[in-house]
Amino acid sequence: MSGGGDGGDDGAPVGGGARLRPLRTDLAPVVEAVEAAGADAFVAVGDRFDDDLRYLTRFAGPDRTYALVVVPGATDEREERPNPDSEDPDREDVDSEDAGTGRAVCCAPALFAEQAHREFGDAAGVHDGVVREVRTEGVGDHAGERAAAAVADLLGESEEAPALLVPPSVPHDAAVYLERAGNELSSTDAVTTARARKSDAELDRLRRVQRAAGAGIARAETVLAGSEVGSDEAGRPAVRWAGAPLTTERLRREVNAVLAARGVRDAGNTAIGAGPSAADLHFVGDEPVRPGETVLLDVSPRGPDGYYGDMTRTFVVDGDGGWERRAYVAVEAAREAALAEIEPGVPAKTVHGEAAAELAAYGFDPNAAEGEAGFTHGTGHGVGVSLHEAPSLSGAGELRAGHVVTVEPGVYDPDVGGVRLEDLVAVTDDGYEILAEYPFGIAPEKRE
Amino acid sequence: MSGGGDGGDDGAPVGGGARLRPLRTDLAPVVEAVEAAGADAFVAVGDRFDDDLRYLTRFAGPDRTYALVVVPGATDEREERPNPDSEDPDREDVDSEDAGTGRAVCCAPALFAEQAHREFGDAAGVHDGVVREVRTEGVGDHAGERAAAAVADLLGESEEAPALLVPPSVPHDAAVYLERAGNELSSTDAVTTARARKSDAELDRLRRVQRAAGAGIARAETVLAGSEVGSDEAGRPAVRWAGAPLTTERLRREVNAVLAARGVRDAGNTAIGAGPSAADLHFVGDEPVRPGETVLLDVSPRGPDGYYGDMTRTFVVDGDGGWERRAYVAVEAAREAALAEIEPGVPAKTVHGEAAAELAAYGFDPNAAEGEAGFTHGTGHGVGVSLHEAPSLSGAGELRAGHVVTVEPGVYDPDVGGVRLEDLVAVTDDGYEILAEYPFGIAPEKRE
Repeated sequence: MSGGGDGGDDGAPVGGGARLRPLRTDLAPVVEAVEAAGADAFVAVGDRFDDDLRYLTRFAGPDRTYALVVVPGATDEREERPNPDSEDPDREDVDSEDAGTGRAVCCAPALFAEQAHREFGDAAGVHDGVVREVRTEGVGDHAGERAAAAVADLLGESEEAPALLVPPSVPHDAAVYLERAGNELSSTDAVTTARARKSDAELDRLRRVQRAAGAGIARAETVLAGSEVGSDEAGRPAVRWAGAPLTTERLRREVNAVLAARGVRDAGNTAIGAGPSAADLHFVGDEPVRPGETVLLDVSPRGPDGYYGDMTRTFVVDGDGGWERRAYVAVEAAREAALAEIEPGVPAKTVHGEAAAELAAYGFDPNAAEGEAGFTHGTGHGVGVSLHEAPSLSGAGELRAGHVVTVEPGVYDPDVGGVRLEDLVAVTDDGYEILAEYPFGIAPEKRE
Repeated sequence: MSGGGDGGDDGAPVGGGARLRPLRTDLAPVVEAVEAAGADAFVAVGDRFDDDLRYLTRFAGPDRTYALVVVPGATDEREERPNPDSEDPDREDVDSEDAGTGRAVCCAPALFAEQAHREFGDAAGVHDGVVREVRTEGVGDHAGERAAAAVADLLGESEEAPALLVPPSVPHDAAVYLERAGNELSSTDAVTTARARKSDAELDRLRRVQRAAGAGIARAETVLAGSEVGSDEAGRPAVRWAGAPLTTERLRREVNAVLAARGVRDAGNTAIGAGPSAADLHFVGDEPVRPGETVLLDVSPRGPDGYYGDMTRTFVVDGDGGWERRAYVAVEAAREAALAEIEPGVPAKTVHGEAAAELAAYGFDPNAAEGEAGFTHGTGHGVGVSLHEAPSLSGAGELRAGHVVTVEPGVYDPDVGGVRLEDLVAVTDDGYEILAEYPFGIAPEKRE
């Protein structure tokens, strides 16, 4: 099967095939944040749906809470993890003997001990000087209590209350455990910042899952191209496929089956609208597909390593070149205008501003509220282990190399439909890379 | 396609087909918990991965945080939501004029306004006397801040600090917003308790997604039944299917494609182990399937309404009747022993105790630690909008009608493999119901 386009889709599964080396996260930025804040440790508590923890530990496991404690400082245990790439066993991976070194303890539920060791404990290939350790505890213990015990153990006795950095959304009960144990908490955005810039290994995962998203779109486009105009049981004009009226739910199942077959773990983020529901930004219901109406497919699967793809295309079966054709041309132009701005050092807002200005030039309201006609959302958002993360193309700050963002201008009319075109774009040293290209065109073509 | 067994699988998709009425949650238990605690309001803050919020609001939307505020008290707005099933427009849905009535405000991100109205705001069919309202705010606002503003607005001015009930894991930053706004917080387990007992509509959703889980197992069993014993490229004995050595990853893709085609949104919880990895409780890696070794399939898809299925079967291709046969017989006996205990009023622990005793009678260690040989986990856990929720079959408390639990005895040997058999069981008024039956047998048979 081909995902189409120039992205070089080889039909390879998202996670397997080439037997990818497991992803590991460099914890040095966390250690540095603790040191820069004059704090003593970093603590995160959450479950497998906490994307900060997923990123930091690569532990995909439990829907029970677990904890990560990171403490800066030289350790005596570095010799336990010799650098396999180094011929000199005494080679230092860090600049000075103390800087950037530390210990990281993952307090995992006992039932997930093996998985925690496999996914977090074995950090082969990471040379951040941080020694990793998995501690397992009984099911009844609260992760906040376990984290407090690990902090006390790692820091030892002290006159002053230990200062802990925590992510802002740490669970309140865990925060209370840590405070009652005598720690002082303050929040840090260090993890958000670290997550925004992707490593080469992360870009590789994003390309793979985005190619899978393209394969999903290709399936839907092929179904639409093979459909025919007829009527439904009530005699209304309807798009028919495989002997029955086509609906958004039938299309979604076709897309998700392709995603699952390619190794995507969570194919649940496929939003498909048809006609007026295409103007609903997150439509996951069941609507008939009608001739002449926009079919908007927003496919954002999550790969086995937790990274999301995000791609949108819009098609019309048997279109008559009315509103939807004008909208498509405008959105294509807005996409080009946005892409032309992307390079390191550019204020992120500029990208949204250019896309909005282009849509305005075509006569669409660039600041419409949701439910009104026009451009009702921002031009893009960061994508990584969260579907929405930093940076926002409507927010403060500058683009930097390694940022990965959607570029997704769209225009909507709640009475008619919607057109959106979305790609995933990595900011490179001198511009941008579209992570997996997929062709354009409002009339569906066979892609398989 | 047939899911096999007596469950009456009709091949129907999980969510569509019969055009299910949307699920709505009775908020009266939340109102009652606030009143019983002498508190003023209930507040929850989280994103779409917060299962308490998903349950309370049925709002599946944002990966940005949102908030729910519930305030007891009679409202003047009841007439805005006449009961469509009642011929008498003045009919009271509650016992007294004030009891059990209240207001619930969902503070949703503006980009998800339409979805919030659709999924939360329209509570047709719920007669809990709670008036629902959606308020939308800009992307930049913090959900904790929005919740604090809604609390102040709903409660009005007061001499005393408002007392708020919150779930224990409310995000710490939201808790701080609420406290700084002058509220006093205490935690409640009312939502956990309410979630444990399923309504008929919830049982219907659980049956549907469990039938899909059975269809996934049926696909894997059919692949195994159609496989043949041969060798891999290294000349080692291997199970081969469709011209290539079969692996756990290939099997998982077959299972997940079936799940996706049936409308399951999250097919990502399919754990398949083969040989020694079958003893790893949460194995999602890629291992070759060898003749004579256990293949353990644990399939726990999430349906479109958020409810999970959870089913495990174990097969051996070309088995020789050794360890795995003895383990299978023991686990089947443990399953029967556990099921025989299930009825309302029975201490949950009894169920685990009987299963463990049966395994011990067959010579397996009933209290093995993970990584050791024997029974390494509890006999079951509640399942609903979380894959693991109350009650636990190893925990305190009694079984009650409406509880839905897994029954999943298993024995493992890290050097050999593992056998687990798992079904989803609802506690009924006089016993139990297996939500979707699936046949047993260690030798795979064609099920499609």
